[in-house]
Amino acid sequence: MTEFTSPDFEPYRNLTARFREIAYLASASSLLGWDQETYMPPQGIAFRAKQGAYFSARIHELATSKEVGDWLMACEDKDLGDPVAAANVREWRHDYDREIKLETALVSEFKEATSLALAAWQKAREQSDFSIFSPHLENLVQLNHRKADAWGYDECRYDALLETYERGARASQLDVVFGALKPKVVEIVQAAIERSKSIPGDLLEGDYPQAAQTAFNREVAEAIGFDFDAGRIDTTAHPFCSGIAPGDVRLTTRYNERNFTSSLFGVLHEAGHGLYEQGLRPELYGTPCGEAVSLGIHESQSRLWENHVGRSRAFWEHWLPRAVHYFPHLSKISIDEMTAAVNRAELSYIRVEADEATYDLHVMLRFEMEKRLISGDLKVADVPAAWNEEFEASFGLKVKQDSEGCLQDIHWSMGAFGYFPTYSLGNLNASQLFAVAQKAAGVSAGLAGGDYAPLLDWLRKNVHQRGRQLLPDALMVATTGGPTRAEFHLEHLRARYVRSEV
Amino acid sequence: MTEFTSPDFEPYRNLTARFREIAYLASASSLLGWDQETYMPPQGIAFRAKQGAYFSARIHELATSKEVGDWLMACEDKDLGDPVAAANVREWRHDYDREIKLETALVSEFKEATSLALAAWQKAREQSDFSIFSPHLENLVQLNHRKADAWGYDECRYDALLETYERGARASQLDVVFGALKPKVVEIVQAAIERSKSIPGDLLEGDYPQAAQTAFNREVAEAIGFDFDAGRIDTTAHPFCSGIAPGDVRLTTRYNERNFTSSLFGVLHEAGHGLYEQGLRPELYGTPCGEAVSLGIHESQSRLWENHVGRSRAFWEHWLPRAVHYFPHLSKISIDEMTAAVNRAELSYIRVEADEATYDLHVMLRFEMEKRLISGDLKVADVPAAWNEEFEASFGLKVKQDSEGCLQDIHWSMGAFGYFPTYSLGNLNASQLFAVAQKAAGVSAGLAGGDYAPLLDWLRKNVHQRGRQLLPDALMVATTGGPTRAEFHLEHLRARYVRSEV
Repeated sequence: MTEFTSPDFEPYRNLTARFREIAYLASASSLLGWDQETYMPPQGIAFRAKQGAYFSARIHELATSKEVGDWLMACEDKDLGDPVAAANVREWRHDYDREIKLETALVSEFKEATSLALAAWQKAREQSDFSIFSPHLENLVQLNHRKADAWGYDECRYDALLETYERGARASQLDVVFGALKPKVVEIVQAAIERSKSIPGDLLEGDYPQAAQTAFNREVAEAIGFDFDAGRIDTTAHPFCSGIAPGDVRLTTRYNERNFTSSLFGVLHEAGHGLYEQGLRPELYGTPCGEAVSLGIHESQSRLWENHVGRSRAFWEHWLPRAVHYFPHLSKISIDEMTAAVNRAELSYIRVEADEATYDLHVMLRFEMEKRLISGDLKVADVPAAWNEEFEASFGLKVKQDSEGCLQDIHWSMGAFGYFPTYSLGNLNASQLFAVAQKAAGVSAGLAGGDYAPLLDWLRKNVHQRGRQLLPDALMVATTGGPTRAEFHLEHLRARYVRSEV
Repeated sequence: MTEFTSPDFEPYRNLTARFREIAYLASASSLLGWDQETYMPPQGIAFRAKQGAYFSARIHELATSKEVGDWLMACEDKDLGDPVAAANVREWRHDYDREIKLETALVSEFKEATSLALAAWQKAREQSDFSIFSPHLENLVQLNHRKADAWGYDECRYDALLETYERGARASQLDVVFGALKPKVVEIVQAAIERSKSIPGDLLEGDYPQAAQTAFNREVAEAIGFDFDAGRIDTTAHPFCSGIAPGDVRLTTRYNERNFTSSLFGVLHEAGHGLYEQGLRPELYGTPCGEAVSLGIHESQSRLWENHVGRSRAFWEHWLPRAVHYFPHLSKISIDEMTAAVNRAELSYIRVEADEATYDLHVMLRFEMEKRLISGDLKVADVPAAWNEEFEASFGLKVKQDSEGCLQDIHWSMGAFGYFPTYSLGNLNASQLFAVAQKAAGVSAGLAGGDYAPLLDWLRKNVHQRGRQLLPDALMVATTGGPTRAEFHLEHLRARYVRSEV
């Protein structure tokens, strides 16, 4: 692994050395987190929570010590003569100015609370018992209040949290975007559901042994470019992707032995994240330009591979024969049936299993709810009732158990408020990026022939390798000619779900 | 998890806080090591090696900073009024005086070299190609010279290394012990092999699907007291046990689908180590009295469960019916055949697969060889030829490939010289401890009836819970009435292999 050659300026070299030290600790902390969700025995949790808190506190101390401020000032006074170095200094400054507003004790307390909350949420979800999770949620809401108040905000407390996940985004601006999006999505959903009535919901139901799913998923993930010499796939309750280190990016999925598409689209989604992580420049690891720029951009990569690629007719023309190889009973399914089945729209309970048409409705519901939790308008005790009421209003379905309602998603147990709206931003960005990418040389022909390298190369160059050199809006402008807009996504949904162009 | 209540003396509290911080880092470092051998993708190695080096250096700095010396002196000037605290101070002093002799750069360089050597050894062993490993081995021998010279020694350089694994042991003393042991073991081996000729080597050969082995091994490990809520078993090329944290102890094994005893005895062995780790006092974690005392004692626990318990007739009277449940074709095997088969002696290539009679011959061979590597009498380039020659002299077998010769064992790739003789010390200690334990209330009756709790309770009280409070020799005296002696082990081998009392 070649390390990044720093400009020959001592304060800059000191910063890269300091953030290399932080990277050693942060990478270990990621492994501790990955391990907690994959292999750690249950009794490991008490020590693991304290250990995670120690790592967070130590990283915070190293990132906010006085000399970091001095080195930053020295770099800001100098022309470093290198756009990557200049962007690193700009981003380190942004992070530093936020981090120094938090006391180390709060950082440490927050991390320990999230480790314990995560374990409690897993149990609560398994038993569909909100009371197991609610004291943890109460605590995490309060800790988020403290963080947001320490950071400060102009319009609303939620903005201070949102900034963590999406640089420059504001709730008021998202309200406008989502406010315009929602009625159009609702229209599309109605047409999509009507159209889907001709597709039996159990068309693909059958026997799909986990080992065969694993083998098929691996073949697909390799084909789109995920490098298994530099990554792996494990099984968890809630799928995720974790970039542990250069050459070490880990995905997880979960299996339904009655329908193979659940794990497959999980893998395509997480591999989309994984390709972004594997596409970062390893020599910049530990510096901002070697990191993903925002969740809204990260999510664009997962949704692009999952939906724009993975649910297209071209994809299945190539992969249905391979699916038949692993699951012979699929030989009775035609290519038309296959593409219709993986694009069937219906109102359902679980976001991560939802079709593309209804997906944003799930996101907007939780976005509205978490804004109210953070403003204090909604009490934690009232979350299940409020979720069920609002879900029924949006989806027309009665929630029978909290595990398929307010407990379905992991994010609040990670202390993450302000994370959720980035899922819809990701959808918008995915549609916008894919519309432009398809015009690039070789991409469409590649997709038609099962060769994903031209698309991946385009994403590598235009998104992955940039790291945080351009902020999300600037990245979208540079890559697609304008900032994030809803039109591309609405056009994509209309083509797929109204005009049946898959 | 209750934390240890320190005596109310500030320097002592400072020491426990410092070593708690070290424990957070050391536990993460253990997880990084475990992960490297179990799940890390191959390309993760370059960063992982540098990361491990950083952790080792940071731990070294924290353990050897000036204030640690000051706190130790303050504690040594005071009666702490608590034997555990006094033992902690004594052991911290011992560790401190050794650690400060090493420069941080050497510690860091050593750790990075071992991570890379481990990966190289795995490849070398797979391909049976010593040349892949030899530059790493050369480097590690040199690094061990530097460590030993920094530590200093009275009689020979090897002693300085040996002290890392077995407090107070000296090569000259081991030469005497092993010198007396070897001719008697050779006599026993001859008788054992003669006696084993009536037992077909392929008596247990058959079909043993890995999933069934895993289920059977788990049942056995649980029965002897290994707690799966606080531990787990994974698969690796070279089985090991890693105590990650309180409530988190991990074993590994490997599978032979033609004979189930390879993974079973691997699990019994590693679970013996695991029971020691799970039996340490969690409230003392991070302090010496919450740590295992030495490898010779650690190995006594693994060998005791593997051999004294697991290869006894009483064990198989209980477990053969369960083995038949998992592997029905074993129903044709009688209890006499089963106990004979798992105690069949033969001269063979692989130490970890060797029977108890021949096992110590493997250990003594590598002990002799590593003394010569460290003294400089043997060059790295000459290792394969020397191994093969000496192996043939001891075992009468020609080594056909290095993977079953000098490359079979992992230890040198971990930079561990002086580790190997603790395997035979472990055998001696196991026999001595087991002879005494059997006389304790309920132990023999328990073993006869498949109830392992009385034996485990005895080990918990007499060995595990003591941590490093008593040094190895003192522990053996307190528990068995005398220091480690060969007689118990020779008597055990004679009973089992000459008089056929299993």
